[in-house]
Amino acid sequence: MDIFSKIAAGEIPSYKCAESEQFYAFLDINPLVKGHTLVIPRREVDYIFDMEDEEIAQYQVFAKKVAVAIKRAFPCIKVGEAVLGLEVPHAHIHLIPMQSEKDMLFSNPKLKLSEEEFREIADKIYTEFKKL
Amino acid sequence: MDIFSKIAAGEIPSYKCAESEQFYAFLDINPLVKGHTLVIPRREVDYIFDMEDEEIAQYQVFAKKVAVAIKRAFPCIKVGEAVLGLEVPHAHIHLIPMQSEKDMLFSNPKLKLSEEEFREIADKIYTEFKKL
Repeated sequence: MDIFSKIAAGEIPSYKCAESEQFYAFLDINPLVKGHTLVIPRREVDYIFDMEDEEIAQYQVFAKKVAVAIKRAFPCIKVGEAVLGLEVPHAHIHLIPMQSEKDMLFSNPKLKLSEEEFREIADKIYTEFKKL
Repeated sequence: MDIFSKIAAGEIPSYKCAESEQFYAFLDINPLVKGHTLVIPRREVDYIFDMEDEEIAQYQVFAKKVAVAIKRAFPCIKVGEAVLGLEVPHAHIHLIPMQSEKDMLFSNPKLKLSEEEFREIADKIYTEFKKL
């Protein structure tokens, strides 16, 4: 199993932001900004565009719901979305609350947060997610 | 009408890569790499996550089809996807053929291409799109 499958299965701990039967969302531990979240399918699939139409549709609709929760928890102009995926062979959507387009630059230095800060951020998003 | 609505309506010329009744794809004229394409809904909608579930699903399924065409026209490891959208108030998905994650850095210098080069790139993608 790849690392993200283990995270979705709870075998590796993560800061949970949202979940459904098919999908799971958790904090990026190298965040560009507070609220930077990864959304993954629970099943092992590497390349997002290899998904069947129905799966990609459900995946993006779930990601939208997570983005709405992030924006309520961390007010921003918009939540940006990015899929790169050359490093971990398991599809993942980055959701990043933006105050400026520069917040989406993956070359930016990553935030260093404490376990408590990560926990608080994830709880805020998960609380908003459960209200949707 | 915003600039992307005018492009989708054909009132402003663009390098067409793909189209459907609801969506339109054309080359970014400030491309990060050859094949860098923008996918937009024809209707005026600013923030992607304001779309209803059905519309966002159809939009992302259409974008997938464009990504498949791009990858056939411009062989790459994966096609990356990004939605920033703080500059033009009309939802647009960037699709970028990647040889490395660095190809997705929006701070990179943009390619300067001739009209003929843009035309050739768009035609290659549109030819692959029509086969799907």
